[in-house]
Amino acid sequence: MVMKFADKLLSASRKNQSWLCIGLDPDPELLPGLDVLQFNKAIIEATSDLVCAYKPNLAFYEALGAEGFATLEKTLHCIPDHIPVIADAKRGDIGNTAKAYARALFSVFGFDAATVSPYLGFDSIEPFINYRHKGVFILCRTSNRGATDFQNLCTDGRPLYEVVARKAGEWNAYGNIGLVVGATYPEELERVRSICPDMCLLIPGVGSQGGDLAAAVAHGTDARGEKAIINVSRQVLYASREKDFARAAREMAEKIRGQINSSLASHPGSQ
Amino acid sequence: MVMKFADKLLSASRKNQSWLCIGLDPDPELLPGLDVLQFNKAIIEATSDLVCAYKPNLAFYEALGAEGFATLEKTLHCIPDHIPVIADAKRGDIGNTAKAYARALFSVFGFDAATVSPYLGFDSIEPFINYRHKGVFILCRTSNRGATDFQNLCTDGRPLYEVVARKAGEWNAYGNIGLVVGATYPEELERVRSICPDMCLLIPGVGSQGGDLAAAVAHGTDARGEKAIINVSRQVLYASREKDFARAAREMAEKIRGQINSSLASHPGSQ
Repeated sequence: MVMKFADKLLSASRKNQSWLCIGLDPDPELLPGLDVLQFNKAIIEATSDLVCAYKPNLAFYEALGAEGFATLEKTLHCIPDHIPVIADAKRGDIGNTAKAYARALFSVFGFDAATVSPYLGFDSIEPFINYRHKGVFILCRTSNRGATDFQNLCTDGRPLYEVVARKAGEWNAYGNIGLVVGATYPEELERVRSICPDMCLLIPGVGSQGGDLAAAVAHGTDARGEKAIINVSRQVLYASREKDFARAAREMAEKIRGQINSSLASHPGSQ
Repeated sequence: MVMKFADKLLSASRKNQSWLCIGLDPDPELLPGLDVLQFNKAIIEATSDLVCAYKPNLAFYEALGAEGFATLEKTLHCIPDHIPVIADAKRGDIGNTAKAYARALFSVFGFDAATVSPYLGFDSIEPFINYRHKGVFILCRTSNRGATDFQNLCTDGRPLYEVVARKAGEWNAYGNIGLVVGATYPEELERVRSICPDMCLLIPGVGSQGGDLAAAVAHGTDARGEKAIINVSRQVLYASREKDFARAAREMAEKIRGQINSSLASHPGSQ
């Protein structure tokens, strides 16, 4: 029987005592004299007992051309089976095409979850949701500066990102929808968590982007102090730019996991 | 000197007397006994004197795994240099990652233009716009049913898609922004054209999706009867599912080009 994404995530998180997700976003210009696959492999080997998930962003593989997707496939083979892998793809297209993307990410590459964009509405997301044992993270309130251009526009008396969160709740018939909410806006994160108390939230924006880790944990977790996936990419991958990058990445991952767990220790649901 | 996208598009359109764009979206299950590259090559050879552009949707290549992107690269080599190629990618990600996507599509694969999603705001689109000689088509009002879920929500007294069109106008410092507006909603198309009188519009949704071609031409073109790229995919690609598919595709492309040109003949700017 195939394990559902949320169960696989909780299982990995409990085993590794971690809500840290590492973004596998290799930039060839920043790698210490080895290729992308060797780099990813070393990062995974150094950190796979410290994470709840990995999250490759497909842009960094697409930037390597066709070869990049072969590297992505090989990278996925390096990740232990019990660790879920989220395709950060932010896909959003019409029905027929959305089906092709969902098939690509879930059946062909074999990801456990994917990020999708809400702009095209329900029928652009439905083909992903229909893979009931896979996770689907809808972009809600992103971590970047430009997020306010549209996501905070007032619609029907509330900001657009809240409308997206509510719709996501309505669409969640199979319980496999999550939301992407940046750590850089803790108040918005708190709002989204109150609208969707049980959903998994994928939270980028701590580390290099400057989001506050303790606030992300406090506002992002559910009532039990779970389901807040804290993603860090560059801060871990490039903790050292020298030959000791894997050891430095491990130390940084341990440190951030420790900080997350310290914040969780004071969480009302953690007892 | 590198030709700007809009100039390359106009040049191809005038040479071929065509505003028809063919979507190169091969579905292996629908191909008459040959592989995707052979199919694409035959379609391109049969139609390259009838189009203003080609538009591969990346989903259909991603669905073939790493091999699919190699096929995409080879497909691009089959397209004559003077015909612009639009990457239908609908990308939208934060700054650092958006840069990687823009590099992937424009520098690595060498597309002339790309479609992007507006949900993440200006800094997600800026890295694309900064390639000044490339075209950037922002999703505005899409052709699918679910488009109304968010795009028609009222914000600041107008629907979100109009806000996107206005923002696109503000962001268009280099004159390389266009908009994607579905033919299935001719009134919205007319609104967008009135907001952005000079932009290139990429108009999917005629053919299999049921949009009215004459209305798309009437409402989508600019004052000179130009800059409305009418995209058709399945209706041309699968005009025949037999061995004569290339001839059938050519006949269908000729027919649609003729219909577009007939509609243009009654356009006030065409004299």
